[in-house]
Amino acid sequence: MLAPIVLVFAVVSPAAARYTADWTSLDARPLPSWYDQAKVGIFVHWGVFSVPGFGSEWFWWHWQGQQPPDQKCVSYMSQNYPPGFSYPEFAPQFHAQFFNPEDWADIFKASGAKYVVLTAKHHEGFTNWGSPHSWNWNSVDTGPHRDLVGDLGEAVRNRSLHYGLYNSLYEWFHPLYLKDKKNGFKTQEFVMNKLLPELYNMVVRYRPEVIWSDGDWEAPDTYWNSTDFLAWLYNDSPVKDTVVTNDRWGAGCACKHGGYYNCEDKYTPGQLPQHKWEKCTSVDTYSWGYRRNMKMSELMDLPSIIEDLVHTVALGGNYLLNVGPTPDGMIPAVFEERLRSVGAWLEINGEAIYASKPWRIQTENTTVPVWYTSKGATVYAIVTAKPPKPTVQLLGPKTSAATKVTLLGNPQPLSWSPLTPSAGLIVLLPERPSSPGRAWTLKLDGVQ
Amino acid sequence: MLAPIVLVFAVVSPAAARYTADWTSLDARPLPSWYDQAKVGIFVHWGVFSVPGFGSEWFWWHWQGQQPPDQKCVSYMSQNYPPGFSYPEFAPQFHAQFFNPEDWADIFKASGAKYVVLTAKHHEGFTNWGSPHSWNWNSVDTGPHRDLVGDLGEAVRNRSLHYGLYNSLYEWFHPLYLKDKKNGFKTQEFVMNKLLPELYNMVVRYRPEVIWSDGDWEAPDTYWNSTDFLAWLYNDSPVKDTVVTNDRWGAGCACKHGGYYNCEDKYTPGQLPQHKWEKCTSVDTYSWGYRRNMKMSELMDLPSIIEDLVHTVALGGNYLLNVGPTPDGMIPAVFEERLRSVGAWLEINGEAIYASKPWRIQTENTTVPVWYTSKGATVYAIVTAKPPKPTVQLLGPKTSAATKVTLLGNPQPLSWSPLTPSAGLIVLLPERPSSPGRAWTLKLDGVQ
Amino acid sequence: MLAPIVLVFAVVSPAAARYTADWTSLDARPLPSWYDQAKVGIFVHWGVFSVPGFGSEWFWWHWQGQQPPDQKCVSYMSQNYPPGFSYPEFAPQFHAQFFNPEDWADIFKASGAKYVVLTAKHHEGFTNWGSPHSWNWNSVDTGPHRDLVGDLGEAVRNRSLHYGLYNSLYEWFHPLYLKDKKNGFKTQEFVMNKLLPELYNMVVRYRPEVIWSDGDWEAPDTYWNSTDFLAWLYNDSPVKDTVVTNDRWGAGCACKHGGYYNCEDKYTPGQLPQHKWEKCTSVDTYSWGYRRNMKMSELMDLPSIIEDLVHTVALGGNYLLNVGPTPDGMIPAVFEERLRSVGAWLEINGEAIYASKPWRIQTENTTVPVWYTSKGATVYAIVTAKPPKPTVQLLGPKTSAATKVTLLGNPQPLSWSPLTPSAGLIVLLPERPSSPGRAWTLKLDGVQ
Amino acid sequence: MLAPIVLVFAVVSPAAARYTADWTSLDARPLPSWYDQAKVGIFVHWGVFSVPGFGSEWFWWHWQGQQPPDQKCVSYMSQNYPPGFSYPEFAPQFHAQFFNPEDWADIFKASGAKYVVLTAKHHEGFTNWGSPHSWNWNSVDTGPHRDLVGDLGEAVRNRSLHYGLYNSLYEWFHPLYLKDKKNGFKTQEFVMNKLLPELYNMVVRYRPEVIWSDGDWEAPDTYWNSTDFLAWLYNDSPVKDTVVTNDRWGAGCACKHGGYYNCEDKYTPGQLPQHKWEKCTSVDTYSWGYRRNMKMSELMDLPSIIEDLVHTVALGGNYLLNVGPTPDGMIPAVFEERLRSVGAWLEINGEAIYASKPWRIQTENTTVPVWYTSKGATVYAIVTAKPPKPTVQLLGPKTSAATKVTLLGNPQPLSWSPLTPSAGLIVLLPERPSSPGRAWTLKLDGVQ
Repeated sequence: MLAPIVLVFAVVSPAAARYTADWTSLDARPLPSWYDQAKVGIFVHWGVFSVPGFGSEWFWWHWQGQQPPDQKCVSYMSQNYPPGFSYPEFAPQFHAQFFNPEDWADIFKASGAKYVVLTAKHHEGFTNWGSPHSWNWNSVDTGPHRDLVGDLGEAVRNRSLHYGLYNSLYEWFHPLYLKDKKNGFKTQEFVMNKLLPELYNMVVRYRPEVIWSDGDWEAPDTYWNSTDFLAWLYNDSPVKDTVVTNDRWGAGCACKHGGYYNCEDKYTPGQLPQHKWEKCTSVDTYSWGYRRNMKMSELMDLPSIIEDLVHTVALGGNYLLNVGPTPDGMIPAVFEERLRSVGAWLEINGEAIYASKPWRIQTENTTVPVWYTSKGATVYAIVTAKPPKPTVQLLGPKTSAATKVTLLGNPQPLSWSPLTPSAGLIVLLPERPSSPGRAWTLKLDGVQ
Repeated sequence: MLAPIVLVFAVVSPAAARYTADWTSLDARPLPSWYDQAKVGIFVHWGVFSVPGFGSEWFWWHWQGQQPPDQKCVSYMSQNYPPGFSYPEFAPQFHAQFFNPEDWADIFKASGAKYVVLTAKHHEGFTNWGSPHSWNWNSVDTGPHRDLVGDLGEAVRNRSLHYGLYNSLYEWFHPLYLKDKKNGFKTQEFVMNKLLPELYNMVVRYRPEVIWSDGDWEAPDTYWNSTDFLAWLYNDSPVKDTVVTNDRWGAGCACKHGGYYNCEDKYTPGQLPQHKWEKCTSVDTYSWGYRRNMKMSELMDLPSIIEDLVHTVALGGNYLLNVGPTPDGMIPAVFEERLRSVGAWLEINGEAIYASKPWRIQTENTTVPVWYTSKGATVYAIVTAKPPKPTVQLLGPKTSAATKVTLLGNPQPLSWSPLTPSAGLIVLLPERPSSPGRAWTLKLDGVQ
Repeated sequence: MLAPIVLVFAVVSPAAARYTADWTSLDARPLPSWYDQAKVGIFVHWGVFSVPGFGSEWFWWHWQGQQPPDQKCVSYMSQNYPPGFSYPEFAPQFHAQFFNPEDWADIFKASGAKYVVLTAKHHEGFTNWGSPHSWNWNSVDTGPHRDLVGDLGEAVRNRSLHYGLYNSLYEWFHPLYLKDKKNGFKTQEFVMNKLLPELYNMVVRYRPEVIWSDGDWEAPDTYWNSTDFLAWLYNDSPVKDTVVTNDRWGAGCACKHGGYYNCEDKYTPGQLPQHKWEKCTSVDTYSWGYRRNMKMSELMDLPSIIEDLVHTVALGGNYLLNVGPTPDGMIPAVFEERLRSVGAWLEINGEAIYASKPWRIQTENTTVPVWYTSKGATVYAIVTAKPPKPTVQLLGPKTSAATKVTLLGNPQPLSWSPLTPSAGLIVLLPERPSSPGRAWTLKLDGVQ
Repeated sequence: MLAPIVLVFAVVSPAAARYTADWTSLDARPLPSWYDQAKVGIFVHWGVFSVPGFGSEWFWWHWQGQQPPDQKCVSYMSQNYPPGFSYPEFAPQFHAQFFNPEDWADIFKASGAKYVVLTAKHHEGFTNWGSPHSWNWNSVDTGPHRDLVGDLGEAVRNRSLHYGLYNSLYEWFHPLYLKDKKNGFKTQEFVMNKLLPELYNMVVRYRPEVIWSDGDWEAPDTYWNSTDFLAWLYNDSPVKDTVVTNDRWGAGCACKHGGYYNCEDKYTPGQLPQHKWEKCTSVDTYSWGYRRNMKMSELMDLPSIIEDLVHTVALGGNYLLNVGPTPDGMIPAVFEERLRSVGAWLEINGEAIYASKPWRIQTENTTVPVWYTSKGATVYAIVTAKPPKPTVQLLGPKTSAATKVTLLGNPQPLSWSPLTPSAGLIVLLPERPSSPGRAWTLKLDGVQ
């Protein structure tokens, strides 16, 4: 059934070397360069789960899927809804009446991010676009009555940001998925009738530059037909030259196959990885989706975010920071404030972040924590805590007479002196340097 | 994909002659005998359309499908719902909180009907059972949260009534159907991915003895794969020996192919047809589904129903009388009253109806309209208007000395005398004979 | 506070004898003549109670007032609504979107009734008009957003029907009423701040010709200030010349004080009362308000209604027959059918009903039940069961040579003969006389 | 009618001098001392207006009251609600399901505020407690089904915060108010039947220590019976010794009569006022009530709030900072963050705020803006902008040898030197002094 769709694009670029539908071939594909240069992205979890906005975007599963169910969810429902109320009945309340993609894209742009990834379809199966394979369970047929994926994409791209889509392979409660699962994944009714037709359609229609795959872990990639899909994606899809994907393409794939690695949610490696990776994390530490009852203490504050971002980039990763909009279509003001503040910090310090490469030393911690990045011959030392004294010691860099030190955002070069004959330096900081996020970047030219 | 399902039943009854998937073979199948004997059935239109309950069960189409739309529907929606409200959002209000299948089945039994046909899925596509192919658009996932098809079936069968299911082939707004339609029905995505898997599943699961097919007219039977389905149904399905179907299996099939003929809604032939047929009609003359604003003048009164039933049976048809339950799950009292009154009439006059055959003359109209039926040597003359005088003349029957005339429901034989030497008789009616429905049956034994 | 309102009308008709605010004076007022002539009225119970439509119009009390509460109501709410859902939250669902007062008035007119009484305010306190004393708890501020009392009144009066309003003195849950009650009715906060200002306002605004008072029984008339109100009503109100009231003006008043007597709901006296009375009863034997789950067996059938009406009128009463419209604003078709059928019967037999007087004998029951009415010298004998034979015996009337007997609806005079020398006659009925309601009227002229 | 209520308390404290119901007497009452010492309060606007959460808490008026209406409100309603939807129908959606008064009180306590003022009843008339005079239009009968005023009061008082209640005298759409208004305020139906009984009841029931009166401006205090109420409040109410009120008691009262002066919303005097005053302002600069679509740029940032607070206190005012909770019962995280940050600033700098008095000079602005407060002999100079250099000049204080300067939050005394022989000093700031809010307090001992 998919053959015709594939054929439409099969005639394109016949001369290029083609990927074959196996991991050896697919894993060998070089990552399109924009991705590593981008460093910072915004993740957006939005869906029917935003309506209850309770617990997390896993609400449905916690309420009615897992055994035993989460009593908090069960109790919330029994106290606030009539008996028998079912999850699909939340959809009509997903109004999105204030959804202004221009406003969202302005905020994302102001955050300094270079790409945006929206949940096109989360584990609940609700598509934020009018998927013909998800009739009456998508944002056009019910709730917002609007193509959320398309509308946001246009606004995002108008600001020269890359646009990616999150897609869950599995759907917790899709009856065909449950049937395949019951059959030990020896049948593929769900994959053939629902998942793949929809996924191909989505790629062709929205041309996402990131496909952020998820929900793969219950079944092997052979069940999902992942390698076939990726071969098509890399060979014949309309985004074959620019698309990047992650590593969630079947049980055992994480940290091993695919495009860049996410490994697991909020994963941070202990040392410099060999493979391009991305850390996804969320301002709301309890949830990726909006929670109606989130409290300040449950949110990352700005310094934590900046520290996390710097840490990630120093170790070669990209940083994908998540916010959960409301069912009304707003990015909560507290999230907007975080994103704009990250942008204010990047406005000053972005030089050390975008298109940077890990340095030979990634971190050190003498008086204050320091993270290094580099770009060409320049080394950046990012201090992620307020120095207790007006000087900072750096152990790693080897200075010379030509060494020059500046503080990003500060016009004058700084005084410095070598720490030991072989390496290190001590830098005199300027009076009360201001930072939107309690992290300062020392730019070191002429060091090794 | 359908192959495995078919195989499950393919081993049954290997010796019997098998039908082939062509009309010549399928049309030759004799109708299981219960059907012609039953004569009277109840049709039930229930679905999401019962929630707006406005105009008719075609509300969605009239509102948003046809061009130009029905201004009454457009106006009703704009005056009573927020802009953008969509049809699927009615589903959560399909509460069915009072649905008691035992009560319904009691009413159907009391009506004298011998079979009941429920809309398992109307053109809106909403299934009144938990179809895995109609996720979140069925009565288990949303609205009633209940297997309406299964629950009613059990109650109906417990009262020795036959149980049938109405199934619409097309779905007005299903995106895969619309895609196939746009392709001139040269593709079958809808049929292969949605319609047929669901239909096979429904038959296996609920074993309906009537499959009341509908919504066939936009595409040929080759698009619907009708002959394949019917061959399976007649050869290998769990109801192969008892199931009957109608004639709505593709454009051009009506009145020509399939099981019994409906021809068109409320169709009544002018003279005795060659092929078994069924007249379906509705107490509410404006709608098959419930209408919140129905008025008495828009309903069939009891005498009209009885006259229509008698007319139909006299011409060899079955009479399928429709009622539309409320979204609350009740059969409106005025419909209950009609059904019970039909039953009261059949209680007295059923002898002339059930298992009857058309007589050589079907009708005549001298002083009052008369319809004839027969059973063996007995002839029944059903008078469907109040005789203005205490005598009734019958022209058709040829009497003899052995001729005996009784009024059903009246203990004593009636006096009669021949009308002419060759044929006809005049019967003296008893004083004030009572009838629940303004129709009286004269039973004639010993006539020709 | 009420003084200014009263004064507005105090100048009217200074010459007439004025009623004083005591029962002796008030009870002496002659009933305006239209009322006794009218004989038949329609009662309409409509309000927020129509929304749950469960149990009866006493739903709120049964659910949350009485101790212990009615478990059926408690259970219905806990199964269909979220915990904590409160009765006032039903009001927004009182849409009345199909309410067409012209249609209603057509039905009432067709029923043969001469007056219509609508619940302006039932015990729930919700006013079906925009009462300034019931802010946000009336049909203009919420729900229908419409002056139901005014709109129906206009349509009813346009058809020359009299228009009355039901008003409940007490309100189950009004906090000021509960406070007065707690104080042993020694305070009158509710009466002074809510009840009376609203009632005066209602009378002035809508000029009802019946004030059907109710909800009086928990407190004495001195608490309600009933005699003051009635004195104003009879002396100074805009309806002083035409208004009639009933007898529910305080504990102990029923069957004793006021205008005509209702005594108790559905009360029928054993013999001819001395005082004008009215029987109110309901087509739905379980409820005055609409019930979503009413069944046919719970409704009065037409013969029962006609028999009840005849019985009532023969004993000098008026007959007020109730129907409960839906929250959508429709009179259910089964009720419409009952009312129009009553009208069809009255079309033929109304001569024996309207403006009739009880005869010296009211009833007898030899072969069939007979009820007598009279008008001038004419006596009507209404037979309320199908005579088993073509003759009917009447024992009471004394015939003479001039005696003439006809069947209403039948052109020819009937044959009759005296039964005994002193009294009684035997009448020969025509062949199969038709009646919409299994009751026939023999008109006797020249009898005593 | 009010007489009995008044009498209940009239016997209390007969010996004390009593206030008479005139402004001369009432204005002479000394303000209870806790109020001036408190300096900082939190204002909470919560009501049915929080449900639409659009525009502001004046939504109802802007939508349906003012002429011409606000087209944004009209358009929002017509785009998102059915025609005819009325404001009272928002109430059932005021769920408050997450309302935890302990959490709220924790936040208010953490903000450093010493009192909390909740809208008991805003202009919409909906009472956040079960007022018997506002039946079915209060938070117990509908919506939250909870005594919001009582529950918050208990939690607030448990943390030793003072508790006040906002009460609107007028109600935009109350029919009795509209009637009085139409009568040129020559009648007092609204005041006598609704406003005053409710207000007395509220005071007796909740014993608020602030009565924050509002909505007075359309009518004179003689209409509102303000002086009678205040005389009772000061003489006989249960809070007579501790209660404070503001100046909104009738047209012309603002800035002239009552307790402390608000003058107008967000009013700030140009110079030191003679009379105790309070500035009320809101974190959301567009609204006092919650807005679903608020953006970061529309909110006061922390430095603005601190500057405003300092400015207000330096001029002798109290600072009442408003937040609008959601209809779900949460204080939005961005507001929580502002309040906790104010608290963090007050934790360090509160010594200069609480119980302070204005100094002889209130402000100066040489290199940076400086605001002065004092406590006994100590003078506090609060710098509300980041000093561009490590020194700050103060012109006003006259130093001596004994003068000592410290930075609040900093352990060591600071170096300083006189600026001129007669007055002024220059202070050397410590290295990178941290502040949660871009304002630093210099404590000056031994200056004049």
